[in-house]
Parts: sequence; C-alpha cells; structure tokens
Amino acid sequence: MRVIKVVKKMQTMARRWQSEKKRVSFVPTMGYLHAGHESLITAARRRVGRSGVVVVSIFVNPTQFAATEDLSRYPRNLEGDLAMCRRAGVDVVFAPSNEEMYPSETVEFSTYVSESFLSQSMEGISRPTHFRGVATVVTKLFNIVLPSVAFFGAKDFQQAAVLRKMVGDLNIPLTLVVAPTLREPDGLAMSSRNAYLTPTQRTQAVVLSQSITHARQRVQASPKFLLSKTLSKEIEHLIRQQPEAEPEYIEFFHPDTLVPVTKILRGHHIALAVRFGATRLIDNGPV
Amino acid sequence: MRVIKVVKKMQTMARRWQSEKKRVSFVPTMGYLHAGHESLITAARRRVGRSGVVVVSIFVNPTQFAATEDLSRYPRNLEGDLAMCRRAGVDVVFAPSNEEMYPSETVEFSTYVSESFLSQSMEGISRPTHFRGVATVVTKLFNIVLPSVAFFGAKDFQQAAVLRKMVGDLNIPLTLVVAPTLREPDGLAMSSRNAYLTPTQRTQAVVLSQSITHARQRVQASPKFLLSKTLSKEIEHLIRQQPEAEPEYIEFFHPDTLVPVTKILRGHHIALAVRFGATRLIDNGPV
Repeated sequence: MRVIKVVKKMQTMARRWQSEKKRVSFVPTMGYLHAGHESLITAARRRVGRSGVVVVSIFVNPTQFAATEDLSRYPRNLEGDLAMCRRAGVDVVFAPSNEEMYPSETVEFSTYVSESFLSQSMEGISRPTHFRGVATVVTKLFNIVLPSVAFFGAKDFQQAAVLRKMVGDLNIPLTLVVAPTLREPDGLAMSSRNAYLTPTQRTQAVVLSQSITHARQRVQASPKFLLSKTLSKEIEHLIRQQPEAEPEYIEFFHPDTLVPVTKILRGHHIALAVRFGATRLIDNGPV
Repeated sequence: MRVIKVVKKMQTMARRWQSEKKRVSFVPTMGYLHAGHESLITAARRRVGRSGVVVVSIFVNPTQFAATEDLSRYPRNLEGDLAMCRRAGVDVVFAPSNEEMYPSETVEFSTYVSESFLSQSMEGISRPTHFRGVATVVTKLFNIVLPSVAFFGAKDFQQAAVLRKMVGDLNIPLTLVVAPTLREPDGLAMSSRNAYLTPTQRTQAVVLSQSITHARQRVQASPKFLLSKTLSKEIEHLIRQQPEAEPEYIEFFHPDTLVPVTKILRGHHIALAVRFGATRLIDNGPV
C-alpha cells in the first residue's frame, strides 16, 4: 500500500492509471476509520476487482466546518487508519495536508462548488456553509484521484443526495454509490463522532435509531397517512426521555427531492439530528 | 468532422480518447465564430499535432446572461460556424441544446461553481451572476470533453483569470492557455458582439483600442507613476468624444490579482467596457 501526501503526485498517478485503463474505486473519508468505512472499502474493491485500484483519501476538510464547530477536536488517528486500510487491501491512501489542498497563493483559495436546492434543509440550516465545503473538497478530490466510481455512506443521506446532484449537474464522469449505514449492536449508526460521547451519552445515543424504528412502526401500522407534526412530536418526546439528549431537527421528506412532507407515507424518509452536550449526531432511514 | 449534440455521446467519445491516450485540445465558444476563434483553433491544433484531437464547443450558455441581457438576440449561425470549423481542421464540434446541458429533472439544475475574488470587480460589478454562469458551464464542458488543454481568448481577460483560478483551486487536470486578442485592421478587438454595431457605432468603436494605446503611451512616457484617477479621466474624455459611446468602467489593475491600482506602473493592466446603445464592448491590455 502506498501513502501519498502530495496532490501533484496523486494526480500524476491517477492519470497514469487512466491511460492504463485501470478502473479506480474511491472512498473519500475524514479518517478515524471505523467498520462503516471498512464496508465502503470492501464495496469499492468488489466493484473493480483485483485488476482495479482502490484509493482511500483521509482529509479533515476545514472548509466544511464552521468556526464554531469541532474542526480542532475532530478525532484523528492516521497510524490506526493506515493499519486498517492495509488490512482491508487498499492500494493507495491519499492523505494531503491542509496546505496541499488549500495552498496560500497570490490570491487565496476562492473557488467553491455549491448546490442550492437539496442542501438548503436540515443540515443546511444547522450548518449553512457545510455542503459548500463538502461539494468543493469532493470536486477537488475527484479531480485529483480521477475515479470511475466513488463510495459514500448512507448515514450522511443529505450529503449523498447533494453530491449525487452535483455529479449529475456538472457531468462529472464517474458513478456515485451510496452504501448502507453500518450500526453498532444496539443500533447506533457508526460515526467517527461517536468517540466524543461519554459512557452515559453513548447509552442514550441509541435513541436516534430508536426514533427511526418508532417512526417506521407507526407508519407501517397506520392504515392511511400520518401527520408529520404528530409523529415529530412523538419522537421529540421519545428523545427527551434521554436526559442528555437535545433534539435539533426531526424531518420527514421525500427521498428524491428532500422536500418536507406534511403527510407521511411509506417510502418517505426521516432524518434527525440530536445533540449530546457539544456532540452532534445524525441518522436517517426510510419509514 | 463530426458534429455531436448529445452530452452522453460526447463524454463517451472523450473517455475513449482518454483510454487511447489521445491528447484532446478544446476551444469552448458561444459560436458566431470569427478570426479570433479561428486563431484559437489553430493554436489548439498546433498544441496536439495531427495525432491529437481538436474539439470546438458551440453553446450560447443561458446561465451567464442576466435577464436584462442579450441572450435572445445573441448572434447565431451554426451552418457558418460548422463551415469554418471544417476549413480549420476541427475534428469534433460539440453543439448541445439548452435541454441537453440543463435538463429538466425532478430537482431543477442547482449546482454552481463560483469564484469569489477575481470575479468581483469590473465585469463582475456590471454582470453580477455572469462569472458564476461561465465557471459552471466551463466546468461542465471540461467534464464532458475531458481535454488535456483548453484555449480562451485574452479579450475576455477577467474571464480567463477567473477560469485559470478555478482550474488551479479545483485541481482540474488540464492546462489552460490564453491566446492573444485578434483585432480588426483599425484596432477593434474581434468579438461576436461587433455584429450588433451600426456602421456609425462600428467606426466609433475603435475608441476602445485607442484608449488602451493612449494609456500605454502615457505610462511609457511617464518617468514615474501616473495616478489612475488622472488617466481614467483622460480616457473617459477620449471615449466621450465619440457621440454614441458611453463608458461603463475604465480600470487599472494588477494583472495577477485584478486588484485596482491607484498608481499605474508599467506591467499594470487596463480594462474597459463601453456601451454603444444596447451593445456593450470590452477590451483590455497591458500598459
């Protein structure tokens, strides 16, 4: 396994793969890898086989964090990440520095990619410049790694929707695959941010997946539609039963457009964000 | 010469070229081609030789025109353009429809690329959403045609600067070449928009290049610096001697940063926009 830290080196290698007709499977990450990432890597390998190339990027992208957010304390463990990538059979890890990705030029970094429809609700309200940062860095990474297929986790459902829209709108020549969320035995969606939780919060955090299950059961058992106002209230009540949990949003929406629905039907989607102290967790699923 | 109107077809062909290691030289245009475009095509061919591929795109991009601008009356002549491309030895003309470039999907087109520093002054003041439209469509065209080198004219100096910044910031894997402005015998910079001018306006339009020459002569003859306030006034006076000419901006700036200068030195740059009735012309040059 090769570890590359320089943009030009990575891009030169990617162009060589291109001219050798090698298929490149790409898993962009912010590191602190867990079993969810590992499942993306496995899917990436399956997609291109032994003759293809699997690239994982590890980069905690500053432009997707607001000044008030957890950039500086975001968990990092490059050695552990490299060990996992090696075990998982990754060919190349691309782990650039901030200075490599956003060099200080005569004119500072000033080009951004933004999606203006799907990115407005939910995470976009809580984190107004987040998706602009994500879309921009993912565009950069795509241009550097030149993959034929890229993998993202369904835990970040809105992110995946925004990036899929970006790939379509900008005609980016690759296939975007969204792979299912991996969960802990109690149902908590795997996330690097779970590392922030105190033992008590960790126990209480199961309420996110429980909320989705509750919503699904209520919708499946309902002969007609349910009002999202009603179900949101129920779920807010459920969340607040956990002393340290503070719900940020609970939204029901159409999975293609992310447009909120007032009447929930099967096939609609729920997404929610819950704070435990300074830690913010998200989850989502179909109902 | 092949004429392709479908995005998927163009992109499939481009990917085949890529795997055949063919170098692709690209000239994006809005059509109504003139000798200035022809010189870009010649430069494009010289760059990749007979073994390479030269692609010209013809697309009047609606997203770079404001509602008040000349989109509907922008001059078009596809047959003439194709004849010129054939003569000039172009391999492929990509001429998509609006619907091909901006299809009506479940969620309407919503992803934009914007540059926020170089695009703020001059044209960016007169045309606030212009460069966002340009950066977005050029990103799309790059992703569809997958060129190794792309050619732009120096007449649109700020556009070239914005696109070069975009290519650098987003790590787009190609070389951007800016080729010199071609001029009519009297000095008028070639532009498709010259077709709008009445014979009287056409005669008066020489004042744009005369303004640049005047600025250059004044700077070259000046032992120290010149104040841009002083020189702007002189040039405004010069322009207003043409009865139908209405200056929109006259700016002196550093060519790398486009930051306006108050004291003009050799190597600085002038750019100006002048209206003749509903027609708006621009020009620029070093002083």
